[in-house]
Amino acid sequence: MRIERLAVVGVGLIGGSFAAALKEAGGVGRVVGVGRGRANLDQALRLGIIDEIASDPALGVRDADFVLLAMPVGQMGTAMAAIAPALAPHAVVTDAGSTKRDVVANAYAHLASALDRFVPAHPIAGSEKTGAGAAAATLFRDRNVILTPLAENTEQAVARVRGAWLACGARVTEMSAADHDRTLGVVSHLPHVLAFALVDLVARHRDAERLFALAAGGFRDFTRIASSSPEMWRDICVANRDALAEVLATYRRELDDLTTMLERADAAALERLFTRARDAREAWMRGNGGTSS
Amino acid sequence: MRIERLAVVGVGLIGGSFAAALKEAGGVGRVVGVGRGRANLDQALRLGIIDEIASDPALGVRDADFVLLAMPVGQMGTAMAAIAPALAPHAVVTDAGSTKRDVVANAYAHLASALDRFVPAHPIAGSEKTGAGAAAATLFRDRNVILTPLAENTEQAVARVRGAWLACGARVTEMSAADHDRTLGVVSHLPHVLAFALVDLVARHRDAERLFALAAGGFRDFTRIASSSPEMWRDICVANRDALAEVLATYRRELDDLTTMLERADAAALERLFTRARDAREAWMRGNGGTSS
Repeated sequence: MRIERLAVVGVGLIGGSFAAALKEAGGVGRVVGVGRGRANLDQALRLGIIDEIASDPALGVRDADFVLLAMPVGQMGTAMAAIAPALAPHAVVTDAGSTKRDVVANAYAHLASALDRFVPAHPIAGSEKTGAGAAAATLFRDRNVILTPLAENTEQAVARVRGAWLACGARVTEMSAADHDRTLGVVSHLPHVLAFALVDLVARHRDAERLFALAAGGFRDFTRIASSSPEMWRDICVANRDALAEVLATYRRELDDLTTMLERADAAALERLFTRARDAREAWMRGNGGTSS
Repeated sequence: MRIERLAVVGVGLIGGSFAAALKEAGGVGRVVGVGRGRANLDQALRLGIIDEIASDPALGVRDADFVLLAMPVGQMGTAMAAIAPALAPHAVVTDAGSTKRDVVANAYAHLASALDRFVPAHPIAGSEKTGAGAAAATLFRDRNVILTPLAENTEQAVARVRGAWLACGARVTEMSAADHDRTLGVVSHLPHVLAFALVDLVARHRDAERLFALAAGGFRDFTRIASSSPEMWRDICVANRDALAEVLATYRRELDDLTTMLERADAAALERLFTRARDAREAWMRGNGGTSS
């Protein structure tokens, strides 16, 4: 299962950490990095995350037996079209995109010749940090990686992708692309847009200066994810806009209920809601919430 | 300015930390603790946060020259009524309530004989943790404490309360109770109810188990404040319900705009909003956001 030659297209936090983790595990021979930012690739080379730089995706994936596409999902189609003609017949391809239905659709459009061995995946890890400089061999340890295999995938291709993520220390599960997008829409995409929206509200407020001056630790943690890459989150929101709009509507109904409780000064209803939420979060933290994700 | 005998009514995270900080600074002689939970008071005594326990508020404040009321704001009126007859003529009284207009109204109703020396205050510190066991002498260091003095306050009373908080290492500012409640409504109360609402949405979802299983670090930090005391936040929401409902309405309009952007797949508008928020947060973190609050 060892990877002889790994091509990482997009050597950012995720792509760089994947290469670093496989190197640390002895699971890869040589790593070639492809990307738009030369300074970032040079840094990855200096850090030993990659062994060589390829100037374009087609050159980069030539001779690779494993290819990881790790760019914002809005660039996935272009990247697939660029590598498709150059892929070796035995190469397995996967991605690290935060949404899966759009990546699958792009694969059908731009990677039709390799549907047997393109295995979509999403490592649920990362942070608001970006770039190869933030990469870490430990990033995926005990984190969830979701595979959404295609009907066309060979068992061998799925096993190779699964094996690579296991070698990174991750826990690998499988589900449909639709289930993935609905699930992540609730627990990841929704909180991100809620955090962006709150900071935007404060920033545009007439008393913004005073508001920021008195914002404290609760605000800081709540909005940490609003320091995430706007480009990446633009792509995620556009790709998953139907599932996200649906859960946003549910959330707005939740806020409607809260508003009614406030208008009625319904202390008992507010306490019930807060207690339910507090208890659910504490149960989650006692499980895997605190340590593994 | 040294406090000879401090009475802390409500020896929780805030009350306990106030006593601990003053003790460490050599700013207090003896501390008497008053509260409903005997186990909590015993722990405070063992930890050296308080020196004695009083069984009821009136006994506790007798002979004290400084009184801190540090219970959830819903209990403030009752506490004021209980201590009013027993207050020494030279005693200064302050509170640590998270809302200020309701505390002021309670003071006019229940502490009318001491309006010259009841100085409302709010230390913007704390966490989702509760109880004397979580108290720390360093809790208020470099944190903001807001005073909302009454027109009736003597300069001396304001100076004593200010001095006590400065001795705890805090930064002290003044504003009106209305400005306080509007400001905290945006940067504290709103994110708390948004976090409670998100966890509640997930907990009530038909796929709750899968959702929690795949929730990661972003969700954990966003919802940390949803582990806060339901009782305390019920009181805050009821006390500040008009300001909170107003900013909730503004926030729902922000979500309406976001929904429109999603429906239109308006990538440029989404990226503008996310960039504006990211830049504002980063600027805040470069200022005092990262370290001092």
